[in-house]
Amino acid sequence: MPVASIIGSGVIGAGWAARFLLHGWDVSLYDPDPDTPQKLASVMDNARSSFPKLYPNELPKEGKLTLKNSLSCAVSEASWIQESVPERLPIKFKTLSAIQKSCDPNAIICSSTSGFTPSELHKGLSKPEQILVAHPYNPVYLLPIVELVPSSLISENLIQRAEELLEDISMKPITIRSEVPAHVGDRLMEALWREALWLVKDGVASTKQIDEIITHGFGLRWAQMGLFETFRVAGGENGMEHFLKQFGPYLSAPWSKLTDVPKLDEELISKIVKQSEEQSGNIAISKLEKIRDKNLVRFLLALKDADWAAGQVLNRSKVTD
Amino acid sequence: MPVASIIGSGVIGAGWAARFLLHGWDVSLYDPDPDTPQKLASVMDNARSSFPKLYPNELPKEGKLTLKNSLSCAVSEASWIQESVPERLPIKFKTLSAIQKSCDPNAIICSSTSGFTPSELHKGLSKPEQILVAHPYNPVYLLPIVELVPSSLISENLIQRAEELLEDISMKPITIRSEVPAHVGDRLMEALWREALWLVKDGVASTKQIDEIITHGFGLRWAQMGLFETFRVAGGENGMEHFLKQFGPYLSAPWSKLTDVPKLDEELISKIVKQSEEQSGNIAISKLEKIRDKNLVRFLLALKDADWAAGQVLNRSKVTD
Repeated sequence: MPVASIIGSGVIGAGWAARFLLHGWDVSLYDPDPDTPQKLASVMDNARSSFPKLYPNELPKEGKLTLKNSLSCAVSEASWIQESVPERLPIKFKTLSAIQKSCDPNAIICSSTSGFTPSELHKGLSKPEQILVAHPYNPVYLLPIVELVPSSLISENLIQRAEELLEDISMKPITIRSEVPAHVGDRLMEALWREALWLVKDGVASTKQIDEIITHGFGLRWAQMGLFETFRVAGGENGMEHFLKQFGPYLSAPWSKLTDVPKLDEELISKIVKQSEEQSGNIAISKLEKIRDKNLVRFLLALKDADWAAGQVLNRSKVTD
Repeated sequence: MPVASIIGSGVIGAGWAARFLLHGWDVSLYDPDPDTPQKLASVMDNARSSFPKLYPNELPKEGKLTLKNSLSCAVSEASWIQESVPERLPIKFKTLSAIQKSCDPNAIICSSTSGFTPSELHKGLSKPEQILVAHPYNPVYLLPIVELVPSSLISENLIQRAEELLEDISMKPITIRSEVPAHVGDRLMEALWREALWLVKDGVASTKQIDEIITHGFGLRWAQMGLFETFRVAGGENGMEHFLKQFGPYLSAPWSKLTDVPKLDEELISKIVKQSEEQSGNIAISKLEKIRDKNLVRFLLALKDADWAAGQVLNRSKVTD
């Protein structure tokens, strides 16, 4: 069995571990946090009760999970090494350097960083050409998306190997050829988040109202067609050009407002926390995670049935091939 | 049977007509466009083949649709009048004034405007206290959300009557007590759209890549939990406060970038149109509409089954009550 090494097992690292294990990979994991076993068990429980529903009777035997006492032991036999340590550049540099001291020179090393570009990571390393960004979304064991970001130092051959391997664990790699802070998906989310913070701060809407407008409206659209495709359909038979020319001028006013950045101070934090807790405070987070996973499985099965969008990933390959 | 009057039957007006008809209301419609009958038939076809799947065996007999030759005939017997004419203030003023000349003084008049506040509409009217904003999302016959925006001139009684009536046609009214241009949902979408335009303009990602990142990633999350609830769950057992304090500082860099507004000039329009057509150009818009509706029905049924988010709207009431 191939071995994946997971360095750092917060919610993202543990999610990667679950995805590899459920695809039959052995996983060597290192995280100095003493609570690692119990945190990992909770993510594995959620993953085991949801992911296999997407591939009934098709999954291989689960791989073997080993918690290692040192980073060097964790990476030595791995062909894929996934770094998911905290989002601070000195910690990233230190971890990636240590990984390279002990790993197979042919292993693929990926960082889960949501903010840093690969070239920023490379600056702290003596042998950067082995390291690229593979940024997933939570929950990693269910959502297929992964943003794969190489720098100009990464060979086409390495990019292709990484893409193929991610497809082997039922993911959808989107290779982004341009390095920008926070890549693509988080930039999109943060733009919406910035506007939402203003709306809450200014008392226009509560967190609950904003969430309901999303979940009862355009969130349903975006789960199956994206932003551009939805707008293209809205343009009718004349498609995108009609849409842009019809709506462009009318939308120019809102576009030009609230583009500055709200300060996330104590006052705004406590307003959001209060509203957010009122909104669903009667349901524990652990329960919400299970509800989320159940809904995601339902959506993914619906799309698998339709052979559409994320469902095509499920239909693309038998994972036991 | 109660009568709803639909003034203007583009994709939004026709969607309102379909929603009322399928809930047993009679609909009187006025639109001077000679293509109205055929455009309406196409929306009704889509609505009839999708919406009833959400309420098997529960729907009343479809109402009667009448196309009227004049606005005054279309509104005279209606208890709900929905204005969905083009998004230009002089046309809105003219239409709303004409409606008020012929309608029941107790009728509720709503504008589908996506951009104007009720107070802006009121400025052009002699009797504004009857008119509020009810802004739906396309497709109106499937998505439950409607932003209900009163001004200070609207009585609480009228707001409550409007909310109840929208619930009767299986909608989820969110009453927004603060008037801002483009209300709430479109502001959120436009913030994300603005960022997406930059990413396409700068060649960071294509429309297809952006759509795939949404449909294979956070779009699936937002169809069942909104922005804040998703972040709260991501914060783990410590919830929203932990999330804000952990991620706030790291995310401050991306927040402060690309907040100015890209110019939607011919060059950017043609770049988007070209990419958008390559992305799905082999599927006709009319076919995409059917795929969209089929997927929305699947999601809504999944959520109905889970009695969660938009599914709770479906479980809330028997429409034949």
